[in-house]
Amino acid sequence: MAAAANGGGGETKAAFARIYDALKAELLRDPAFEYTESSHQWIDRMLDYNVLGGKCNRGLSVVDSYKLLKGVDVLTEEEMFLASTLGWCIEWLQAFFLVLDDIMDDSHTRRGQPCWFRVPQVGFIAVNDGILLRNHISRMLRLHFKKKPYYADLLDLFNEVEFKTASGQMLDLITTHEGEKDLTKYNIGVHRRIVQFKTAYYSFYLPVACALLLSGESLENYGAVENILVEMGTYFQVQDDYLDCYGDPEFIGKIGTDIEDYKCSWLVVQALEHADESQKSILFLMLLQENYGKKDPACVAKVKDLYKELNLEAVFHEYESESYKKLIADIEAQPSVPVQKVLKSFLHKIYMRQK
Amino acid sequence: MAAAANGGGGETKAAFARIYDALKAELLRDPAFEYTESSHQWIDRMLDYNVLGGKCNRGLSVVDSYKLLKGVDVLTEEEMFLASTLGWCIEWLQAFFLVLDDIMDDSHTRRGQPCWFRVPQVGFIAVNDGILLRNHISRMLRLHFKKKPYYADLLDLFNEVEFKTASGQMLDLITTHEGEKDLTKYNIGVHRRIVQFKTAYYSFYLPVACALLLSGESLENYGAVENILVEMGTYFQVQDDYLDCYGDPEFIGKIGTDIEDYKCSWLVVQALEHADESQKSILFLMLLQENYGKKDPACVAKVKDLYKELNLEAVFHEYESESYKKLIADIEAQPSVPVQKVLKSFLHKIYMRQK
Repeated sequence: MAAAANGGGGETKAAFARIYDALKAELLRDPAFEYTESSHQWIDRMLDYNVLGGKCNRGLSVVDSYKLLKGVDVLTEEEMFLASTLGWCIEWLQAFFLVLDDIMDDSHTRRGQPCWFRVPQVGFIAVNDGILLRNHISRMLRLHFKKKPYYADLLDLFNEVEFKTASGQMLDLITTHEGEKDLTKYNIGVHRRIVQFKTAYYSFYLPVACALLLSGESLENYGAVENILVEMGTYFQVQDDYLDCYGDPEFIGKIGTDIEDYKCSWLVVQALEHADESQKSILFLMLLQENYGKKDPACVAKVKDLYKELNLEAVFHEYESESYKKLIADIEAQPSVPVQKVLKSFLHKIYMRQK
Repeated sequence: MAAAANGGGGETKAAFARIYDALKAELLRDPAFEYTESSHQWIDRMLDYNVLGGKCNRGLSVVDSYKLLKGVDVLTEEEMFLASTLGWCIEWLQAFFLVLDDIMDDSHTRRGQPCWFRVPQVGFIAVNDGILLRNHISRMLRLHFKKKPYYADLLDLFNEVEFKTASGQMLDLITTHEGEKDLTKYNIGVHRRIVQFKTAYYSFYLPVACALLLSGESLENYGAVENILVEMGTYFQVQDDYLDCYGDPEFIGKIGTDIEDYKCSWLVVQALEHADESQKSILFLMLLQENYGKKDPACVAKVKDLYKELNLEAVFHEYESESYKKLIADIEAQPSVPVQKVLKSFLHKIYMRQK
């Protein structure tokens, strides 16, 4: 079999992008449904609108991880196709979450365009489109992996990660409701649980788990790898919470609204923890409760003043460097060098990121 | 193994109901998620609210079909548990569709209570609850069927039926949009396609397919059975469309609004077809287009007058008796007597139904 042009980063990206077209075309001729002309057009447009437009970090990392696990720079055409298909399945999963999350959060824009449900003539049909995006993953897996010995494991993996993510989302939604009444419901344990389930599993564990299954490995033997990736995902989300407040809006591409939205952010959790220790704890708590979750810029400014008084920027930098050290130590304790390389490649992509 | 008390209809229903409690308890101690007290309560309430309250026809029919396929009146405790679990998976699937459909249709009540998303403090969290209901199916299947040789086939079956149903729902939503502009977009082919995908697969084919897999059969050998069940599901939905207009609201438990909602109902399709043949076709079409899809009771009455002039009640009764004859003939052409019994039990549950 001919080697695909997938050596360097740019070539991999181009090959990965071409495979999207092939997968979409296959879905649109799926014999399990009789498409009419309008429904064919609908799905075509819905996929381009929602699956494309992101950076494809999660999807591409399946290909990169698989190469590192195999110890090769270039994959055969078939290997590249299968790894990319799993990568695209993760991108489809992400699209499914985003389409539905935007409805639940009543958001306006996503990836520089209106959220799908805000497009005229879409509206709540977007709920069904979300379901279809999830269904497409099962269709793609069946079409290309049905005969593989790890087929049931792949289905289980996507099912379990989806379940964890949706459970994390539930916790986030319920917790924010409770927090609005009583901010002290937020604490580091609650934050950690939301972040791990809602973000870490599908963003960090899932791509590596896909690459491992593709390499013929059994996931049962990789519990430690799972833990490291979930830790890394937690660290990634803490960065996200930090950048929401302290990042350069020009650079990160959005204006953070975690304070306005009453989010259980790592920063507010730190503020609560540090205030507890100080002499001024009651005053702090009252000020925070009064100003958190309000749209008024004066309230937001007051919250940021409190963060400043508590020196949360320094608390974050300390957390960042400690997390890095701990993760590197855990990674280097892994017996397999290719696995170490995979984990380090993830870590170095996010360490000290500014966006 | 002791035989379960599941002989007669009432006993089966009671045993089936008890298994719901066991399945819910298992889901709530699923190690794949760390439930907090509030999220535990949330799921507990959400399941009782949305999974219960229906007639469980689909779920119970897995148990009944399995008994007929095995040729026994009473199942062992384990057989009863597994058949009921698959039955409950279908009830969970139904709950998932209903929770999300009610959001898409902006409905108010369901099974005599407010739709889940209309319950205070739920709102759009209902979207995520819908996803969780679907995820629970995968969790239950994994927990009880992972070691069975037909595990991957079960996952494929639920995935494929969900995909067909969501695709049918898409077609319904898109078609209604188009029909609102031009009623002649509705025709019997469009109606048939929507009905088969949106209703027939999950309501009629899925329960029997579950019973077949449980009996160790391969679904590949049952293409003819699939076709018959999909035909039966189509016939069932035509009855539904008929009862929406002509059923006794007291008896069917709701006031039909297909005319007001611009639905691609079997009746409007028949009206369009029969009007085409008449001398008065243009007048009829204009009258229909003017009055269909309007909330005004005078408009609804005008549509019903048109139906009466076209004698659609008689057209329906003719369709009903022809469908029955055709289905009986197809069923009796099946080589397996137990399979014939299963199919006839479905048909006799719905033939000439008044609600």
